[in-house]
Amino acid sequence: MEQMKTIELLRRVQSGALSPEEALVSLKLQPFEDLGYAKIDHHRGVRQGAAEVIFGQNKTPEQIAGIVASMHASGAGNIIITRMAPKAAAFVAKEAELDYDAVSRVGIAYRQPDTPQAGFIVVASGGTSDMPVCEEAARTAEALGNRVERVYDVGVAGLHRLLARLDVLMRARVVIAVAGMEGALASVIGGLVACPVIAVPTSVGYGASFGGVSALLSMLNSCASGVSVVNIDNGFGAGYLASMINQMEAAT
Amino acid sequence: MEQMKTIELLRRVQSGALSPEEALVSLKLQPFEDLGYAKIDHHRGVRQGAAEVIFGQNKTPEQIAGIVASMHASGAGNIIITRMAPKAAAFVAKEAELDYDAVSRVGIAYRQPDTPQAGFIVVASGGTSDMPVCEEAARTAEALGNRVERVYDVGVAGLHRLLARLDVLMRARVVIAVAGMEGALASVIGGLVACPVIAVPTSVGYGASFGGVSALLSMLNSCASGVSVVNIDNGFGAGYLASMINQMEAAT
Amino acid sequence: MEQMKTIELLRRVQSGALSPEEALVSLKLQPFEDLGYAKIDHHRGVRQGAAEVIFGQNKTPEQIAGIVASMHASGAGNIIITRMAPKAAAFVAKEAELDYDAVSRVGIAYRQPDTPQAGFIVVASGGTSDMPVCEEAARTAEALGNRVERVYDVGVAGLHRLLARLDVLMRARVVIAVAGMEGALASVIGGLVACPVIAVPTSVGYGASFGGVSALLSMLNSCASGVSVVNIDNGFGAGYLASMINQMEAAT
Amino acid sequence: MEQMKTIELLRRVQSGALSPEEALVSLKLQPFEDLGYAKIDHHRGVRQGAAEVIFGQNKTPEQIAGIVASMHASGAGNIIITRMAPKAAAFVAKEAELDYDAVSRVGIAYRQPDTPQAGFIVVASGGTSDMPVCEEAARTAEALGNRVERVYDVGVAGLHRLLARLDVLMRARVVIAVAGMEGALASVIGGLVACPVIAVPTSVGYGASFGGVSALLSMLNSCASGVSVVNIDNGFGAGYLASMINQMEAAT
Amino acid sequence: MEQMKTIELLRRVQSGALSPEEALVSLKLQPFEDLGYAKIDHHRGVRQGAAEVIFGQNKTPEQIAGIVASMHASGAGNIIITRMAPKAAAFVAKEAELDYDAVSRVGIAYRQPDTPQAGFIVVASGGTSDMPVCEEAARTAEALGNRVERVYDVGVAGLHRLLARLDVLMRARVVIAVAGMEGALASVIGGLVACPVIAVPTSVGYGASFGGVSALLSMLNSCASGVSVVNIDNGFGAGYLASMINQMEAAT
Amino acid sequence: MEQMKTIELLRRVQSGALSPEEALVSLKLQPFEDLGYAKIDHHRGVRQGAAEVIFGQNKTPEQIAGIVASMHASGAGNIIITRMAPKAAAFVAKEAELDYDAVSRVGIAYRQPDTPQAGFIVVASGGTSDMPVCEEAARTAEALGNRVERVYDVGVAGLHRLLARLDVLMRARVVIAVAGMEGALASVIGGLVACPVIAVPTSVGYGASFGGVSALLSMLNSCASGVSVVNIDNGFGAGYLASMINQMEAAT
Amino acid sequence: MEQMKTIELLRRVQSGALSPEEALVSLKLQPFEDLGYAKIDHHRGVRQGAAEVIFGQNKTPEQIAGIVASMHASGAGNIIITRMAPKAAAFVAKEAELDYDAVSRVGIAYRQPDTPQAGFIVVASGGTSDMPVCEEAARTAEALGNRVERVYDVGVAGLHRLLARLDVLMRARVVIAVAGMEGALASVIGGLVACPVIAVPTSVGYGASFGGVSALLSMLNSCASGVSVVNIDNGFGAGYLASMINQMEAAT
Amino acid sequence: MEQMKTIELLRRVQSGALSPEEALVSLKLQPFEDLGYAKIDHHRGVRQGAAEVIFGQNKTPEQIAGIVASMHASGAGNIIITRMAPKAAAFVAKEAELDYDAVSRVGIAYRQPDTPQAGFIVVASGGTSDMPVCEEAARTAEALGNRVERVYDVGVAGLHRLLARLDVLMRARVVIAVAGMEGALASVIGGLVACPVIAVPTSVGYGASFGGVSALLSMLNSCASGVSVVNIDNGFGAGYLASMINQMEAAT
Repeated sequence: MEQMKTIELLRRVQSGALSPEEALVSLKLQPFEDLGYAKIDHHRGVRQGAAEVIFGQNKTPEQIAGIVASMHASGAGNIIITRMAPKAAAFVAKEAELDYDAVSRVGIAYRQPDTPQAGFIVVASGGTSDMPVCEEAARTAEALGNRVERVYDVGVAGLHRLLARLDVLMRARVVIAVAGMEGALASVIGGLVACPVIAVPTSVGYGASFGGVSALLSMLNSCASGVSVVNIDNGFGAGYLASMINQMEAAT
Repeated sequence: MEQMKTIELLRRVQSGALSPEEALVSLKLQPFEDLGYAKIDHHRGVRQGAAEVIFGQNKTPEQIAGIVASMHASGAGNIIITRMAPKAAAFVAKEAELDYDAVSRVGIAYRQPDTPQAGFIVVASGGTSDMPVCEEAARTAEALGNRVERVYDVGVAGLHRLLARLDVLMRARVVIAVAGMEGALASVIGGLVACPVIAVPTSVGYGASFGGVSALLSMLNSCASGVSVVNIDNGFGAGYLASMINQMEAAT
Repeated sequence: MEQMKTIELLRRVQSGALSPEEALVSLKLQPFEDLGYAKIDHHRGVRQGAAEVIFGQNKTPEQIAGIVASMHASGAGNIIITRMAPKAAAFVAKEAELDYDAVSRVGIAYRQPDTPQAGFIVVASGGTSDMPVCEEAARTAEALGNRVERVYDVGVAGLHRLLARLDVLMRARVVIAVAGMEGALASVIGGLVACPVIAVPTSVGYGASFGGVSALLSMLNSCASGVSVVNIDNGFGAGYLASMINQMEAAT
Repeated sequence: MEQMKTIELLRRVQSGALSPEEALVSLKLQPFEDLGYAKIDHHRGVRQGAAEVIFGQNKTPEQIAGIVASMHASGAGNIIITRMAPKAAAFVAKEAELDYDAVSRVGIAYRQPDTPQAGFIVVASGGTSDMPVCEEAARTAEALGNRVERVYDVGVAGLHRLLARLDVLMRARVVIAVAGMEGALASVIGGLVACPVIAVPTSVGYGASFGGVSALLSMLNSCASGVSVVNIDNGFGAGYLASMINQMEAAT
Repeated sequence: MEQMKTIELLRRVQSGALSPEEALVSLKLQPFEDLGYAKIDHHRGVRQGAAEVIFGQNKTPEQIAGIVASMHASGAGNIIITRMAPKAAAFVAKEAELDYDAVSRVGIAYRQPDTPQAGFIVVASGGTSDMPVCEEAARTAEALGNRVERVYDVGVAGLHRLLARLDVLMRARVVIAVAGMEGALASVIGGLVACPVIAVPTSVGYGASFGGVSALLSMLNSCASGVSVVNIDNGFGAGYLASMINQMEAAT
Repeated sequence: MEQMKTIELLRRVQSGALSPEEALVSLKLQPFEDLGYAKIDHHRGVRQGAAEVIFGQNKTPEQIAGIVASMHASGAGNIIITRMAPKAAAFVAKEAELDYDAVSRVGIAYRQPDTPQAGFIVVASGGTSDMPVCEEAARTAEALGNRVERVYDVGVAGLHRLLARLDVLMRARVVIAVAGMEGALASVIGGLVACPVIAVPTSVGYGASFGGVSALLSMLNSCASGVSVVNIDNGFGAGYLASMINQMEAAT
Repeated sequence: MEQMKTIELLRRVQSGALSPEEALVSLKLQPFEDLGYAKIDHHRGVRQGAAEVIFGQNKTPEQIAGIVASMHASGAGNIIITRMAPKAAAFVAKEAELDYDAVSRVGIAYRQPDTPQAGFIVVASGGTSDMPVCEEAARTAEALGNRVERVYDVGVAGLHRLLARLDVLMRARVVIAVAGMEGALASVIGGLVACPVIAVPTSVGYGASFGGVSALLSMLNSCASGVSVVNIDNGFGAGYLASMINQMEAAT
Repeated sequence: MEQMKTIELLRRVQSGALSPEEALVSLKLQPFEDLGYAKIDHHRGVRQGAAEVIFGQNKTPEQIAGIVASMHASGAGNIIITRMAPKAAAFVAKEAELDYDAVSRVGIAYRQPDTPQAGFIVVASGGTSDMPVCEEAARTAEALGNRVERVYDVGVAGLHRLLARLDVLMRARVVIAVAGMEGALASVIGGLVACPVIAVPTSVGYGASFGGVSALLSMLNSCASGVSVVNIDNGFGAGYLASMINQMEAAT
């Protein structure tokens, strides 16, 4: 598609409709808007099949609201804002339609009505404390148009809890396995299911959990095939990737 | 399906065809064969859509040959053996049909004729030294029935090399990005393509690369969406997961 | 016992008292209650010889009180709550009988009268600052029905303090050795006694103690036989394991 | 007992049978023999219920043989030598009765006939490569007079293999869980059994397993109660501790 | 020059204008003023071509103001104060001419009028959150008499943003590449430009970014030639070094 | 001396003045007082040539005051309290004579008049921010009866400052070198002086200083002979050891 | 310049001399030659002012010789090969003019006669063992057309050795400071000279030097201004960067 | 003394006996000889009270022999060579009088007859495997003119072995405590003796000993006063420092 655009551009130069200098400018034309504090990429939805996502951490409420407004003006909907403090959410909600969840700190601005979906993603967690990360993953996936099944508090130290939900796990198209502490959940699930498993280590724990390092290493060393890992506490990344995989069409 | 089997079993108890004691034994019957030094899982192909894979490291040539023989006797083909030393390959080749690649140290026993495939996987690498890991990934994916395009030596310090192959990258269904040193390849590719990217850090480098830790951390911290990571040098894991994703059918 | 239950179930299918489908449901029936934010395992006392323990950290006072109420309704007593903030304790105490200790932050809900015990556990500590972890261990062990002797502030830099208590140490059935800083206490005690020693590193210290890592490594490297280690600051885990060992009956 | 000895000594001073100076010497008399390169502790069997153990690593064959000879001269049998290279074993075998196992590198000098035992210890392992550590644990426990059941290659990525051996696991008095890579075996077993679990991380793995660190952290962070950990690859330590626990008598 | 001074001094001794004792004192005369809490180096401007810089962190407002006053009294202008809290800036501003920037926390006391400059330094950043470090670098370089071009929010996950500014990057005499997370910016820029690149890792990120370690390692492992690295968040150091390089004269 | 006491005791048993049982109790008699929260060692001054030192961190004001009172009652003076918060100092000062320094957080209770001393200790520091640790060292040494010369802010990046104080450094009997950041001060001083150098890494710095680890490693790797290291920020330990060395008498 | 080329290309399309399709191909034409195992960048000398450098580690002698031949055929001279084993050098020397140094393992193929140079680079080292890294830096710089002064074995533990060479250090345009162990050399030199200092940590040392980590951290934490750091043992990188800086022309 | 020399020099300038230029040269005259590969410091014996020490690691036999010859020619005796391989020792022994110990790999060239000494140093070790480091310390101290008492194999897991040697420990003027694994020896000895304790961590151990890091951290965190630490395996450094302390004269 990019190649098509380039050839089209060159054809217009060939036909004299465009001077070489104009073409150069056009080739360089940034498909983003510069707000000073941020460059917004309005074509990303086109290129990557999803709207821009705003990483809310380290941004002021005013900056978030400004980016939302700019994106909305460009026609974007279902704008995902992650790691948004309640205070920032309150501010943004005054200026835009916002659906905010305080547990995951995820906001969806200008939410679109859901499209019905065939396959689904499972978000599984080791313990109650992992819920903020789980919900970041789940809500991201939902905002991107996926059905999500939550299977929480099924840590491996009580295997019967996990086995009781085996049916839903085995029917998933992707599983997101969220766990802190020893992070064994990803391996155990990876050995049970036949679909891709995205492991998310969390910083939940104490002592030798080292802020998620223990779970991260466990997951990277998983003996189960089909498991890959994202950054500690990166629920968004897992939800986004799960959506990509769940929405794959059959190769043609 | 597992549920179906259980119900069938219980029905046979109901009908008197099976005593409760026999059923218990049957429920426990291991779907694996015990060779003493290893338990071989003959049903795994059924459950997970792929034959058993043999991790050759730390196994004697005799053990590998024994496992291959047992699997072949059970009807398996396309048996993948990773991390197999040339010496072990020579031994196994005497007792079984073996297709062995010395660079990746991957062997395929009783290789099946390839099935034509529509979509393809790209394996991209930062530098020449990453080739063993790349080939482990590529050959695994090929043995599992995928078409693979190799895009090697396109490290980010010479961006024009990578951009020159942008067309093949953008048409891939999955990209495996293999890199040592600073591991930036995954992020750069992740920002360019719209499909899942599986990042494989390699232990290539010296000094502060710390045997792959630098690349691993880089990849975990990727700002690009759709990137997940497997263990250092784990070409097999990446190839296996890429195959899972590439072969996904549309959700129904 | 589990096997007995399964056979019984299968017999009822055989006799027609149960349909195969009902049996399947029954086999899957979760031995836990789902409170939404947590799944409570009412059978654990039966399976593991102790009531459920509530890890209070990261739970709201309301959640703790809810779990206690649910467990109490199922007949549980001596419910141990660890890492409970004073504020949460005050809340729970309004709704349940609670025995709370502010140093260890351990609460016991619906405490049962103590059963006299023959053997005893020693909890030994290196310094005054380790007391919260010591008391978490000691109170856990006591709640599980053990007699505990406290031998505190006997760090190895003043060996005569430790030797003065040698008699009680040598009569113990299990010793819990709690220490931060250089963590040498476990090795020294391990060399003196003939019973299992459970080492608990604490995060007490500064500089190169790295939040307990120094003590942890020391303890893992103990040259004394019979020493094993639990997580940094994990007084509960040590108390629980010590109880298991102390209450062992002679093999028959 | 030690107190009894001291009082006896003091009584002999009181009675004039011993001068104070002689008593002082006697109080200091080392209960070990000094071979120059090592001090052998002949009373340890008495104090700790087991013969001295020889850590063979970093000792010359001559040194090992010398220590064995000295211990045997003092009446010791069942002398355990760990980490003994085959070459050293060959040398020692020329001078002493030696039962040597090349996989675990454990030798037993002057083995005593086994005493029948009631309870048993389970040694469980994640994979075939963990076998040297497993056998070090198993053979240590056997030499100390315990019955050992081996449950090998039951890693959590193939849960059905583990569940198939649940009966033997649930009847054990102590379980030694040996695993490298992600080390999840200890947590999963810890959640299933009601007896103490001794976790042994192994250095088996590659990449982010960091020579056993990943498994070690996993095990320390286990959510299952009753799990404690020994040093990486420390099969001996686990076997020794398991023996202590298995041989406990009921408290009186 | 130092040698010239020493010879001059010795000549004055030779001529009798100075006694040996006076010369010794003079040789030792400290080219700094001792304020008790700090020793101020008034000759540094001469020796190193720049005024003393005040590292504001861990200094009281009174101490900063005192040092500024002492330096100003010695004739210094363009005094750079880094890591100065707003509160300290408010205090200092009462006693001295101060140009303070709250984002970078850099203050310039007694700013001199800018000298026009031919070449320029580019400060490039991966994301909005890196701005404080960027501005510390940029303002330091400006205060030292350099022209600075800011190229912000051009992280490698959106390569077109970076390529759109390629012209300014390629005309720079030095580039300062500031990035957190995976830190790939330095490598990508290093491969595109032909001038020195100073990489500044930032502590921006979460999880496995480990407070800037991930970016630091990435940058140290850069495959691009001409890249060197300063401490995490050390914008000042990068700005200072960039100034040194930008102001180099042709070798004669 | 301890031997003398033991022989005396045994003589009294021999003479019948003491029964063996009484002697046993006496041999075990603890030379410390048990306050419940701490065991105070009144004989330490005798055994180690210095009064007990109170580590104030993690102790309540009441506990500190209690220990001071108990020690004072036993005749101790010059009682050193380290890491004492201003609030605790205010409390203790109400109940005891206290000389408190807010920078180092060191208090001396019941200070004794200084004894004149011949040799002296130098405390040298890299920068102003290291002062709290320096003063902890200096005040500890002074309280133990030593003369201390302070040579502050002589970091190696401005070598002339250090060289200007070379005379006092070279006349010292011990040097305490306190530095954060790159910690090079210890090596440079170690190469200049002929007396023992005690290196104290401090947690001062940012980024890759990792809370003092960088300075600690530097100091451990010092190429200069005669340098040894204490824990990060352990000014007390350095002052105590320096006092031991400074007060050594000639061997006889 | 790149812009000029693009405009020229577009003009040829405008004039009809080139079809759009041909232009697209031309825009994509890779300025590198693909040897299969490597992509050689023949334009790099033009773009970055230096010929391609071959990183010899992990390449076979045949591969190195092949790359040299390809580059030489394109007109390149002064081809730098780093980390080349003596065996590889012997092989390459048979097929090309090669100047090889066994200490630094640097080879220069088709060396060009030196151009006289005005300014010079100093390579300074802490100890004799750092020489391989020093020589890699020095020979790289020389091959790139710089004069190099070697100031070796001037570690900070013997400051007079360094001060004796102060004159040459102070006249340098760039200093490369190479040191292992505590790495203090960079800070001390950085405080003495007024030019950029490139610090190269080396893996020389033992124990807590951790393969160069100690020196690396020291150098990153340098308090001296104007110091930046390259990877452990990266002599080449330092030499290359030093050349860039030394050859800067005055800004115009 | 240095001041005296400088004043003398200046007086000679004053008197005309020396021109300023000659004085400058003289002030700079290096008190070392340059062998090309090393700069030998012949005055060090004078300045620091001991002959130059040769760190043999990474030096060729020829280089060592050359340095020894140069030092001997300058009148040095008792030249200590550490970390010298047997092969190098054999070479050096052909050209110089050499007393070489294969365990510690320490050689003394041109050994001087011992001077009788009053006080003594104790070298204590945790286990047999630490002996090479112990002997490096002991032989260094002996070569520097000290009496050394060896107290080996007294690890804290068998406390009675250590207590049996308490008398010699308590009479020492300095103790060097050498231990790997958990490194507790330094703390235990530090609590028993009243003299300085130099702790030497060794790389002996396996698993979580991490090449000596565990022992190093233990020792740095020692609660005992009077303990300081040198680098892992740095027996030489400990022996050198112990000699400094042991040979201190009373302050005058």
